[in-house]
Amino acid sequence: MKKQMMLIVTLLVSLVHFAISQPPRGPFVISPKVNADKTVTFSYLAPNATTVLLGGGQFGAVDVPMTKNTEGVWSVTFGPIKPDIYPYSFKVDGVTVMDPANVAFFPNERFKGSLVEIPSDVPAIYALKNVPHGTVSYEYYPSVEGSTGTLVVYTPPGYTKDKSKKYPVYYLISGTTDTEETFWKVGKTNLILDNMISEGIAKPMIVVMPYGNPMAKIAEQTGKDKPADVMSRDGEDALRRMKMFEIDLITHIIPFTEKNYRTIANRDNRAIGGFSRGGGQTLRTAFNNVDKFAYVCSYASYISPAEMDKSFTNITANPAKTNKDFKLLFSGIGKEDFLYKGTLEWENYLKEKKINFKSYVTDGGHTWMNVKKYMNETLPILFK
Amino acid sequence: MKKQMMLIVTLLVSLVHFAISQPPRGPFVISPKVNADKTVTFSYLAPNATTVLLGGGQFGAVDVPMTKNTEGVWSVTFGPIKPDIYPYSFKVDGVTVMDPANVAFFPNERFKGSLVEIPSDVPAIYALKNVPHGTVSYEYYPSVEGSTGTLVVYTPPGYTKDKSKKYPVYYLISGTTDTEETFWKVGKTNLILDNMISEGIAKPMIVVMPYGNPMAKIAEQTGKDKPADVMSRDGEDALRRMKMFEIDLITHIIPFTEKNYRTIANRDNRAIGGFSRGGGQTLRTAFNNVDKFAYVCSYASYISPAEMDKSFTNITANPAKTNKDFKLLFSGIGKEDFLYKGTLEWENYLKEKKINFKSYVTDGGHTWMNVKKYMNETLPILFK
Repeated sequence: MKKQMMLIVTLLVSLVHFAISQPPRGPFVISPKVNADKTVTFSYLAPNATTVLLGGGQFGAVDVPMTKNTEGVWSVTFGPIKPDIYPYSFKVDGVTVMDPANVAFFPNERFKGSLVEIPSDVPAIYALKNVPHGTVSYEYYPSVEGSTGTLVVYTPPGYTKDKSKKYPVYYLISGTTDTEETFWKVGKTNLILDNMISEGIAKPMIVVMPYGNPMAKIAEQTGKDKPADVMSRDGEDALRRMKMFEIDLITHIIPFTEKNYRTIANRDNRAIGGFSRGGGQTLRTAFNNVDKFAYVCSYASYISPAEMDKSFTNITANPAKTNKDFKLLFSGIGKEDFLYKGTLEWENYLKEKKINFKSYVTDGGHTWMNVKKYMNETLPILFK
Repeated sequence: MKKQMMLIVTLLVSLVHFAISQPPRGPFVISPKVNADKTVTFSYLAPNATTVLLGGGQFGAVDVPMTKNTEGVWSVTFGPIKPDIYPYSFKVDGVTVMDPANVAFFPNERFKGSLVEIPSDVPAIYALKNVPHGTVSYEYYPSVEGSTGTLVVYTPPGYTKDKSKKYPVYYLISGTTDTEETFWKVGKTNLILDNMISEGIAKPMIVVMPYGNPMAKIAEQTGKDKPADVMSRDGEDALRRMKMFEIDLITHIIPFTEKNYRTIANRDNRAIGGFSRGGGQTLRTAFNNVDKFAYVCSYASYISPAEMDKSFTNITANPAKTNKDFKLLFSGIGKEDFLYKGTLEWENYLKEKKINFKSYVTDGGHTWMNVKKYMNETLPILFK
């Protein structure tokens, strides 16, 4: 019996080894913890900090003070919060940090935020449900100027089963400073489609999610130090980068997709859409390549009447042709979005020019909560 | 001409809109910047901070002071640094943060670190090269206790081309607090195999990278608040979690893989390996399921002689059979690894018991730089 005990002790000691590859970490923090009443308890370990604040402006938490317990864990219970997926962070003595205890994060070139999901009583269309799931694949492809690009591809449930079936493709582009991961990790495009396909609401489709900033890859891979080319906020650079993305999409991404995936490779089975900068890339790419896409979805974006007049008379000169070409021209915008006014001006311009479009105006601002609403509106009507 | 100018101004203003979805961000920071002499310049914007330190212990940077320029950007040039991929972070007035300007990060349940790659003059085996690339796919699968699990699958170049070809499978498990993303995002398993397959060094294979901590998923999805079950550092819990992972792998992950991927579904074409806790899971799972795996790779892990005597006499009782069963039993360890002593004890135990194994001892510690070395040693000899 004593020998048995010794053995168990030895066992435990040897097992503990596997867990101590990190330095001692103090108390084990669970954060975020979503409570039954839809409040959320956020926690952060910082025994020596003077102030810790919760930052989650999109659910109303602006520098909310947290309080420290005797173990040095700061926490606050906030809410109830309206069910959705939100970014948040902590401000520790003035320094913004992600939640170290949370794996879910917002992929972005600049800011570092964590994500919290507050489930609704009836599971939302973007919730992880017990339905057949598609696959999300990361690909390298030959991109502009000899660089290697990265993109993410959603294939629907059943894609690997029926090896002869071909699918329409939605090219879906994220916003400024987002990456190729943002549409699925924050926007949950894959889960929305899993659910919609399972319910027969949306057609099974492939979704290609590119990295919208190919010049960053060029700079990274060639070692060239030209920050202004990569991501400055100057207008001329923005225009040049948009063009570079268009070239990348048309001459590299679409051919790569159609070579490596079972696609229906014609304009009636190609859609293009995007959020924010990705919406601007969507509209310009679609209008410059009318032969390529029949469905066009702008999520919180627009083109100014001045630019329309200058660059896109091909779209406005013959409205009947344009209205036949585009089976869908969608414009979604939130009333509190800082692009709301510009979007309305663009929509009025389209009306004057007798170009058909589907307008969807909702509450809320320039957020990924709203992007999910725009996907809700558009995914069911693509390729139909 | 004046009208033209006006138009350009309007255009630029409208384009700038797409870039300002974030609040004003001050000067544009490029970080990290790898210089030609293999020094690296790290930068962090914090006009109001009092001290900013660079932390990158694995390349020798322990709390290295950074200096602030007139724009409020702190920076330091460190090195030259030995070519490899390293985690790093900043300590801003005592608070540890990722590099906000860097997309590359270390997926982990607990700490949040950024990654920097210092390329070598002759591109390393893990470098992104101009060779055919495989695909990295994220899957949901039905896991233990009704939860939905997540795993990552590498399929080799050509997988989608020849639709009849079947492949051997390497099940590869990451360490404590790592996620299913760590082996490819930090370990670069996909790029190593792309390069090795292209050079004919390794056989084309599928690699399945599970999330090694299924009990965290159960807690997350059922909303049960039982932190001790999820990841406490107590030995009994660790043992129970290892068993839960084994059940998940054998009864869920392998059947899911063999149903959805073109695998050669027999023990001669199954390998299992892992790092740290994943190495412990590897050894216990392999020894409990000798009928399932012919290749077993422990990366910085071991089983104590006491546990071997108690639980794995099936392995030691008949060395001739065991040596025939396992075409490879690999043990890789670094001389500065805190598990070095325990690993040597285990290897000596195996020698005494006349169990064949391949020992690989290298410099370095319990790091992902060393994991890449262990992959270098093992990937070329799997399934041969």
